[in-house]
Amino acid sequence: MSQFLRPALSALDPYVPGEQPQDKSYIKLNTNENPYPPAPGVLDAITREAVSQLKLYSDPTIAPLKAAIAQQYGLQPENVFVTNGSDETLGFSFLAYADAEHPVTIPDISYGFYKVFAQLFQVAPTVIPLREDFSLPVEKFCGVDSMVVFANPNAPTAIALPLSEVEKIVASNPDHVVLVDEAYVDFGGESAVSLIDRYPNLLVVRTFSKSRSLAGARIGYAMAQPALIDDLERVRNSFHPYNINRLSMLAGVEAMKDTAYFEDCCQKIIKTRRHTAEALKDMGFTLTESATNFLFAAPNVISGKEYYEKLKDRGVLVRYFGTQRLSPYVRITIGTEEEMAVLLEKTREILKEANP
Amino acid sequence: MSQFLRPALSALDPYVPGEQPQDKSYIKLNTNENPYPPAPGVLDAITREAVSQLKLYSDPTIAPLKAAIAQQYGLQPENVFVTNGSDETLGFSFLAYADAEHPVTIPDISYGFYKVFAQLFQVAPTVIPLREDFSLPVEKFCGVDSMVVFANPNAPTAIALPLSEVEKIVASNPDHVVLVDEAYVDFGGESAVSLIDRYPNLLVVRTFSKSRSLAGARIGYAMAQPALIDDLERVRNSFHPYNINRLSMLAGVEAMKDTAYFEDCCQKIIKTRRHTAEALKDMGFTLTESATNFLFAAPNVISGKEYYEKLKDRGVLVRYFGTQRLSPYVRITIGTEEEMAVLLEKTREILKEANP
Repeated sequence: MSQFLRPALSALDPYVPGEQPQDKSYIKLNTNENPYPPAPGVLDAITREAVSQLKLYSDPTIAPLKAAIAQQYGLQPENVFVTNGSDETLGFSFLAYADAEHPVTIPDISYGFYKVFAQLFQVAPTVIPLREDFSLPVEKFCGVDSMVVFANPNAPTAIALPLSEVEKIVASNPDHVVLVDEAYVDFGGESAVSLIDRYPNLLVVRTFSKSRSLAGARIGYAMAQPALIDDLERVRNSFHPYNINRLSMLAGVEAMKDTAYFEDCCQKIIKTRRHTAEALKDMGFTLTESATNFLFAAPNVISGKEYYEKLKDRGVLVRYFGTQRLSPYVRITIGTEEEMAVLLEKTREILKEANP
Repeated sequence: MSQFLRPALSALDPYVPGEQPQDKSYIKLNTNENPYPPAPGVLDAITREAVSQLKLYSDPTIAPLKAAIAQQYGLQPENVFVTNGSDETLGFSFLAYADAEHPVTIPDISYGFYKVFAQLFQVAPTVIPLREDFSLPVEKFCGVDSMVVFANPNAPTAIALPLSEVEKIVASNPDHVVLVDEAYVDFGGESAVSLIDRYPNLLVVRTFSKSRSLAGARIGYAMAQPALIDDLERVRNSFHPYNINRLSMLAGVEAMKDTAYFEDCCQKIIKTRRHTAEALKDMGFTLTESATNFLFAAPNVISGKEYYEKLKDRGVLVRYFGTQRLSPYVRITIGTEEEMAVLLEKTREILKEANP
């Protein structure tokens, strides 16, 4: 840190991405990536000619990608906002709607970046604890007189809120933006997109990183009524209007168009999740009901930390958070059937060692 | 705009990118893109296998690209910061060092985004007018007791400041960051990179969009002492740590490595610039001395606006700004020799029409 950094930022506690150790080859179940490659159309779209055209700027209106997203969800391009990963959508939303005088209400256990954005933009967050069973206490997010941000399904708990409960939160805060982060919704949640035409304060945030197999292309998006999209465009055009590069634009359009491939990948992951969850329950794990592409699982006979470390020793990476309430748990991304078979085999070994 | 947008942002005056009309095919000399494709290694690096790997997140440490940049400039990776276009570097720098209590000093005529960032982050800018001949009044940027941001060479004036003058500004503001935006330096400016080891307050900002033929890949970077880079990393990791996508990472490494191709492209552009500038002078244009990949040129017998419009009618796009002091001028990107021959031919037609 230099002497020049603004004092307000010197206490920043940045987000810590999942580790990417390079010492050997791991089965990577720690960052909620999709185990299946992007849709075949993505591979066909990125030709040598497309790469050669990188000499030219990308389209700052992001028109082709907005059109593809709008068509998929029965919306208009004016309802769609696109960014370099959904973190950027979240960041622009904080910048648009929250500051020292305009606070934000968030759950205590959720995507860690909400607290980081609050710090970065000097927003006082009202942090609402999840219930003992990790469910969201909906009534505490109703009528709160501030912007509300939550993930549905939530992470790392994997739990989904029914749409009727989401609607209660949106309806009870008409004077503030309610941002519903649906990064994982395609794996079993109920989307709030159907509520957009009724609620001018609803902002639904999505990503291509999970269900569209494009984590490395960095594409996030939001859907809302045109006035909210216009707000976010004002921020984007005041930060970097060329935020989507040419190749990600091509990739995103193709990934969004191929509904059959998308649904097939999601169904495979849901099926593998069911098998894996059942097997872990049989081994004595405590699990929440997952509506995501990961499991939130506590081995019980050993700590979350020990389980994480022993899996890592055996070449399987999962995510361990280490805060007090989460310490019995790890977050396990759903990989292929083969990868999860290895996870289960290593887990059996670890439990046997612990309980010989 | 919605009722929810923060009042501070309702007056935002976003940056307006160069137009990209779709009605017909134009010779595009309006956004300072490179007319030559990216280095051959870029085309070879983006394979089907690389595209398939988009299912995985990119490296949040940006290690390969930092290493390639550091090696090119005789620095260490700790001296290098990388972002999604240099606009993001500029934005993060404003966020790190400027706010309502920490102002910034900028030239009145320069890259339009400096004023936009000041608005976005509620920074009061001290705006220093350029001299009558569009040169930078160096003495007015010395000892100003605020962060200083300027472009060298400047845009759209195309004029470069000698390194000794840049050093005066850096040396006279030891308690504040001096950001030198070197987007165009490879076309004839003197870089301040050589000053980095002596000045802890110097931040040199660059882009792959111009001299590296990668405008559509969105890669910007900064070079400075490690403490400044650490500040910017804190902001990046609090905004989006995966800001560089996988394919741009590959493209950037290859573009940075191929010094011979890079120098060849720059030399071709410099040669074409000389021919074009001489021909325009012969036709009575007023031009500044360009150290960039564009010309700042006034036709004199007609207004900048009329010249821009008549060129557009004839299928050649240049950039017209329209503010009072710039109204006699247009900014003309240097394309290929063939493209500039068309520009000159159309210009002759236009002047003949005006002065039959």
